Amino acid sequence: MKIDRTSDRSVASLIAPDILDLLDSSPQTIAAETEEMHAADLADVAEALPHDRVRDLLAALPSARAADVLEYLDEELRTELLEEMSAPEAARIVAEMNPDERADALEELEEETYDEILSEIPLEAREETERLLAYEPDTAGGLMTTEFVSVPGDTTVEAALTAVRRIARSGRSEGMHAIYATDPQGRIMGVLSLRELLAAPEGAKISDVAWEEVVTVAPTADREEVAQLTSNYDLVALPVVDDQGRMIGIVTVDDVIDALVEEHTEDVQKFGGMEAIEHPYMQTGVLMMLRKRAGWLAALFVGEMLTMSAMQRYEHELEQAIVLSLFIPLIISSGGNSGSQATSLIVRAMALQEVRLRDWWRVAGREAATGISLGVILGTIGFFRILLWQELGLWDYGQHSVLIGLTVGLTLLFIVFFGTIAGSMLPFVLRRLGFDPASASAPFVATLVDVTGIGIYFSIALLLLRGTLL
Amino acid sequence: MKIDRTSDRSVASLIAPDILDLLDSSPQTIAAETEEMHAADLADVAEALPHDRVRDLLAALPSARAADVLEYLDEELRTELLEEMSAPEAARIVAEMNPDERADALEELEEETYDEILSEIPLEAREETERLLAYEPDTAGGLMTTEFVSVPGDTTVEAALTAVRRIARSGRSEGMHAIYATDPQGRIMGVLSLRELLAAPEGAKISDVAWEEVVTVAPTADREEVAQLTSNYDLVALPVVDDQGRMIGIVTVDDVIDALVEEHTEDVQKFGGMEAIEHPYMQTGVLMMLRKRAGWLAALFVGEMLTMSAMQRYEHELEQAIVLSLFIPLIISSGGNSGSQATSLIVRAMALQEVRLRDWWRVAGREAATGISLGVILGTIGFFRILLWQELGLWDYGQHSVLIGLTVGLTLLFIVFFGTIAGSMLPFVLRRLGFDPASASAPFVATLVDVTGIGIYFSIALLLLRGTLL
Repeated sequence: MKIDRTSDRSVASLIAPDILDLLDSSPQTIAAETEEMHAADLADVAEALPHDRVRDLLAALPSARAADVLEYLDEELRTELLEEMSAPEAARIVAEMNPDERADALEELEEETYDEILSEIPLEAREETERLLAYEPDTAGGLMTTEFVSVPGDTTVEAALTAVRRIARSGRSEGMHAIYATDPQGRIMGVLSLRELLAAPEGAKISDVAWEEVVTVAPTADREEVAQLTSNYDLVALPVVDDQGRMIGIVTVDDVIDALVEEHTEDVQKFGGMEAIEHPYMQTGVLMMLRKRAGWLAALFVGEMLTMSAMQRYEHELEQAIVLSLFIPLIISSGGNSGSQATSLIVRAMALQEVRLRDWWRVAGREAATGISLGVILGTIGFFRILLWQELGLWDYGQHSVLIGLTVGLTLLFIVFFGTIAGSMLPFVLRRLGFDPASASAPFVATLVDVTGIGIYFSIALLLLRGTLL
Repeated sequence: MKIDRTSDRSVASLIAPDILDLLDSSPQTIAAETEEMHAADLADVAEALPHDRVRDLLAALPSARAADVLEYLDEELRTELLEEMSAPEAARIVAEMNPDERADALEELEEETYDEILSEIPLEAREETERLLAYEPDTAGGLMTTEFVSVPGDTTVEAALTAVRRIARSGRSEGMHAIYATDPQGRIMGVLSLRELLAAPEGAKISDVAWEEVVTVAPTADREEVAQLTSNYDLVALPVVDDQGRMIGIVTVDDVIDALVEEHTEDVQKFGGMEAIEHPYMQTGVLMMLRKRAGWLAALFVGEMLTMSAMQRYEHELEQAIVLSLFIPLIISSGGNSGSQATSLIVRAMALQEVRLRDWWRVAGREAATGISLGVILGTIGFFRILLWQELGLWDYGQHSVLIGLTVGLTLLFIVFFGTIAGSMLPFVLRRLGFDPASASAPFVATLVDVTGIGIYFSIALLLLRGTLL
């Protein structure tokens, strides 16, 4: 089945009808007709088919091929399919999956189904799965696969190449981009890319041609650290070693990319002021969506209620000079916006390790300079806006319009400065307290600045307008 | 020189003093002592050295090694170093860089230096560089390298392997993870991973064992599309083809990761309400920072000035019932926060292609349901907060406190609903108009909702309080 990739339509919509027809044929025909398709495309098509037809498709494919398709399948659909299959049927496919993908797939199942399927797969694969599931999913251990190619350091290049070809022919070891040299205790001594192995002079020992400096990671390392190392050193696989320096797995670059994309999604959602959702938007039910959004929204709302108390404190002043209330939305939103800018900048710089905890005072200095400048800009615009409207007769701010303009302008200067400093320092405070700095969302900063903003505004008003308006 | 990676200190701070001492030795000693270090680490160390010592270091290293270090070096430092070197000195190193990295490095230079260095490198590399620089940096063409391994489809597996070993030994072709089968016109006919080549039966033709379904991309494709394809199909290299289907390069996975990280940074900064900055936070001057931040902040400020006009329209009502002003910050921020949640969610879902333009009405339906629920929650809290304070005697909202509570509660319901709908639809509107949906920043949405929110608030107040407070 040939896919026309120049079409605007999705692969699934192009092929799904043909696959449906095909499913009435013999398993051999189904397997042969779909043989050249990328497993990712076949998974896309499967997602567009009715459930029972997906099971027919998987049943018709050779186990290894069905396992490949399962790896690319949407998580929820995969879980449902595995729950619906008989345990031996599921085990036949699951046993052929890469160890890390297998662990991910089984982790999502009901405990009972999990136990049933696990008991049907070969002992070695079973133990491997349980070992991998002991690691947190967001760590190097949770991302790694246990299939990698390692040889003793004194192996010759030719012998290593023969070993590599044997392993390649066995169809295992997805991540065969590098060969690791290990000592008799399994400790990692060197690394060699497949290209470097091919380039190496015949007769040389692996230990002579391998790189001795190997970048490794502990199984407990966070996926952000894994991504950082992979990106910094341009790796296609990152070895995971235990505390004895023994190699226990590798994280392959495709899983790093998936982790990066997932991390990005979580960051964006958190910065928008909600809990991260685990599934794609369209597959998340309204109830789950509410759960992820209502909590933060209500918490921010309760925090924002402090603005009511702050306003109440100044009700007397408001009664005397109602004109002051006109500028409140403008003032607090300017504080919130400048805070949101600063927070997004610093949260990201921290994630990229461009800025560390100990840099807080340097950041504070830079943000102070930026904050004052931004404050002067907005304050000036605000001041002249009020004067201009008064002069042009567009609005009458009364006889003290210049004083009102000064009050608003000066408040803007202070609040933009304060918003910038608060927004840039909040991620440091959160990290210092052991929280994720990315919890410093735009709404969080805005709420923080709003309450203070009202206080700043009325303090300046009392200072400048006492004896005239107040 | 051996690096203690278990130390908490950075590689650069551990090694920099030793390298400084070492730099007084002969070039041979310098090259030998640093031979086992990863080029990325050596680049880190170089960044910690004084400029003139970095030049000494690069001069002491063999050209290919110096080129590797240059590839990992901070962009700004790299540009400065190349500007400072003599043209032949720079050309010696630059000629050894991978084509894509070379183009990136030369692109940053002053035109004069660029011309001088380019005229010193071999003709072929020069033409290649100029060809690559013709593509936009954020496209597949801008990311690709022109070094890849392709063989005619009728090559035997053994002959292909010999060709691969020869290319590997030449030290070129960084991205040797896959072999591409091409027809006599250079059109791509199949792909085979290096592992699959090693696993292939001897004597077979490449066209028999290669995958015919090849995922390719046009040179003009956006880097987001490149990342999406690499991630979907778990690729380590993505072939770039011209409109005739002829292969002109590959994008390797390390460049995809860099592009993903950069894209993420831009997204976060844009969502925070500023223009994306090109350099790391600490290396961006305060003036440049101001330029990136003041524009959006001032634009939002001018937009937010509409709240002044909106408030002025209701000054008469405010004078009659000053108590209404107390709730304004609470109300407009709730609208902004719910809008910010919805926007971040949809912008991200769009980037992941979970949601397409034509899904807008489905999204609207889902967000309407969520928005009403969230509105009911916040409205209820707001209503009871006012009643409770009144009952407990914490504040006196006057004889019409229940009506005031109703007004605030109902306004919250409407504004959260409106904020959610506006926030979720804005990315669709932006995309439909041809803008980047990611321009829908949290402050942008908040500003949009603030102005409308004041109108909603006073409309409901006029409806419920006419004859009592108003």
